[in-house]
Amino acid sequence: MKPLLFGVFENAQANDSGTATWRHEKNERIHFDRLDYWTNLARICEEADLDWLFLADAWGWSEIDGVRPEICDIETLDLPRLDPAIVVAAIIHATRRLGLVITGSTFVEAPYSFARRIATLDHLAEGRIGWNVVTTGTAETAASAFGKSMINHDERYNMADDFMELAYKLFESAWEFDAVERDREGHFSNPVKVHRIEHDGPYFKCDGYGNTHYSPQGTPVIFQAGSSSRGLEFAARHGECIFLGGGDVDYVAEQVQSIRQKAKRNGRNPNTDIKIICAISCVVGETEEAAESRYQSILKVQRPEVAAASYAMFTGIDLSKHSIETKMSDLQTELSQSQIQRFGEAKVGDVLKNWHANGVRPIPYVGTAELIANALLEMASKCDLDGFMLVPVVQPLSTIEFVEQVLPLLRSEPVKPKAPLILTLRERLLGAASSVLSDSHPGAVRRGS
Amino acid sequence: MKPLLFGVFENAQANDSGTATWRHEKNERIHFDRLDYWTNLARICEEADLDWLFLADAWGWSEIDGVRPEICDIETLDLPRLDPAIVVAAIIHATRRLGLVITGSTFVEAPYSFARRIATLDHLAEGRIGWNVVTTGTAETAASAFGKSMINHDERYNMADDFMELAYKLFESAWEFDAVERDREGHFSNPVKVHRIEHDGPYFKCDGYGNTHYSPQGTPVIFQAGSSSRGLEFAARHGECIFLGGGDVDYVAEQVQSIRQKAKRNGRNPNTDIKIICAISCVVGETEEAAESRYQSILKVQRPEVAAASYAMFTGIDLSKHSIETKMSDLQTELSQSQIQRFGEAKVGDVLKNWHANGVRPIPYVGTAELIANALLEMASKCDLDGFMLVPVVQPLSTIEFVEQVLPLLRSEPVKPKAPLILTLRERLLGAASSVLSDSHPGAVRRGS
Repeated sequence: MKPLLFGVFENAQANDSGTATWRHEKNERIHFDRLDYWTNLARICEEADLDWLFLADAWGWSEIDGVRPEICDIETLDLPRLDPAIVVAAIIHATRRLGLVITGSTFVEAPYSFARRIATLDHLAEGRIGWNVVTTGTAETAASAFGKSMINHDERYNMADDFMELAYKLFESAWEFDAVERDREGHFSNPVKVHRIEHDGPYFKCDGYGNTHYSPQGTPVIFQAGSSSRGLEFAARHGECIFLGGGDVDYVAEQVQSIRQKAKRNGRNPNTDIKIICAISCVVGETEEAAESRYQSILKVQRPEVAAASYAMFTGIDLSKHSIETKMSDLQTELSQSQIQRFGEAKVGDVLKNWHANGVRPIPYVGTAELIANALLEMASKCDLDGFMLVPVVQPLSTIEFVEQVLPLLRSEPVKPKAPLILTLRERLLGAASSVLSDSHPGAVRRGS
Repeated sequence: MKPLLFGVFENAQANDSGTATWRHEKNERIHFDRLDYWTNLARICEEADLDWLFLADAWGWSEIDGVRPEICDIETLDLPRLDPAIVVAAIIHATRRLGLVITGSTFVEAPYSFARRIATLDHLAEGRIGWNVVTTGTAETAASAFGKSMINHDERYNMADDFMELAYKLFESAWEFDAVERDREGHFSNPVKVHRIEHDGPYFKCDGYGNTHYSPQGTPVIFQAGSSSRGLEFAARHGECIFLGGGDVDYVAEQVQSIRQKAKRNGRNPNTDIKIICAISCVVGETEEAAESRYQSILKVQRPEVAAASYAMFTGIDLSKHSIETKMSDLQTELSQSQIQRFGEAKVGDVLKNWHANGVRPIPYVGTAELIANALLEMASKCDLDGFMLVPVVQPLSTIEFVEQVLPLLRSEPVKPKAPLILTLRERLLGAASSVLSDSHPGAVRRGS
């Protein structure tokens, strides 16, 4: 079996993923606005030799009929949150090897300044940066906050394609990888290797020079989690590390196969150019009963009235106004379509119950470390997965439990002593000989020669 | 005499301020894209108990008749550069007390996301953040890079006023300072203290909730350096730490007096609500001859053909096309008007010579530490200055020279052992009892009650 990749999913706010475990006595992420929460977590990840720490993001908030319910503040469902790019920058100095993945929105960012921000991160972190490309599921409230026009779901992906084109030009061709010579007797930069960028796309325009030179990875490793049909198309074109939300084995296996096929049709190697990882959650106990009891204690701190407001943040839909017998497949949204499609033919009443427990998180594995490790190994094998992203239930406890108890069982041998060689995130994830985009990636055609 | 404030001016690029000292053997800032350059410098500043490290920024490049001269790359006059917000974020973990000031442009940023970025910095740095507000002197090339329309000089300040209004709403009133209670038995946030922001200004619009809660300082300490008449008006209204570019004693004294008068007319205390600091450069030697010889060695690495391209970056004007007898006061620009006005009635030929040596930097004091310290003390006293910002000639050598040799002579007693109390930047600079904006500041009216 191929060696699996592992990362941790995080969010710079007290709760995430539509759940509200902040009241749990072990939840230290209520101090998400303190640097030591993040450096402590990053060190746990690095010492366990995890491959990356991933920071999610959103811009909007929960709104039902134009009003943000009070419970959003009381239970801190949506706000406040911090800027993940700044959090990740602040972690760099506390780590040496850990991949650091930020979420960045093609709906609210300006490509020219975003490219500089990402390239700066990749320079300072010596090539350890990934970019989770999102089109902002909470687009309606985000648009209002930014004083922009709302753009509907599929069109946001067209916008994202245009954003990527310009971003690739800025990352790959504005400065050739060896344009900076830093030769005190010669050139600082070689003028023939610095190129003016011209981009006149349907959404974004640019005429000028990139602000930052070619970073260790050029383009950061592209993470992508879109699971609508338009989202999967985007992922199979641009993504290098595709992040699935979880679900039962057949559903995940089908998604993996479909992404690999689409990637292949795009001329990409479906195994080496793309890694597919799946979200998992778990609650570990010495016995199954102990694990179940701990899971119940976590569920108990989550108030039931959270569910409707939390679901509305992702979809704009107030499930409490629908009959519990309504089929999910009868609902529609221009926000996150994944949060309807993943429930298939389920009914509103069941989804409200499931959402209360898990939000957008996968249903956790609850049991002994052996049980969980075996389930994951079986899932990886049956679904042809390349790895997993732990979506923690209570932080940092969930991460500590996972790395101390489950992870050793997932690795064929204990973590080896750290090699002196520090890899870029792309080398680490794709096992690539090179730190830069594979030649078959659409961004690579922009690369200067 | 009042205790003076001291900071260091930096720039996340190899050269800055229109000069090109990168070829100098001691210039380590050719490695501005490596984290250890920054953490090393920050520690020098912190150990010397300096009040802040300041990062300048720009977005544009030098362009003459629509073309960027090759010398810009060869001598790295303008590009490449990094994002100062990311550099500062990466420094936080390596420092505990040092103020960290970033430059942020009201011309290219979106206020809603910029406010989140700044608030995140202020949370993670526990209140050590300042924001140098700029309208982007290199607006013409920046506009082209962002696919935006050019906005002329004075109108950019109108835009900045609108930006500030929205930023104050997001910093001060979206989340009251005690809205976040983090009480596991009660509320995370108190809904009556979280307010929807509505802003419908001439340039910026927002309808929604602030993404980040009230940071230790609420509004970061506002730095301002505008020296055009419209710039001074803006500074006297919004600025808390006004940064003058230097010049002869009479000129500086007049600027200080004028700013204090304007601040007073705005209802602000001209001494406690506003601190005025002046740029200085210096080259220190054990004897005057030794200092002069070192200065000449620094000048010698700067190639003369740099001057015209570099001046064009700030003003868009190609001085080499004007007669050396042309008076500077006959020239006009919509970029940085300060870079014409500061030369008064001087002629183009003189300015080209001066620019080659110093760019926008003040003419350095060259001499022994005693000579320099005495000149600074005299200037501070005659001009009623609150402190100085060192604009280094060669980094980090200039900073080390200054803190080791000159600074001890400027402080009435040696730096005391570090007190356990860590101050916010506002407490430190304004000597204020509070970390938040003074009641007389225009941003304070937005503060929730």
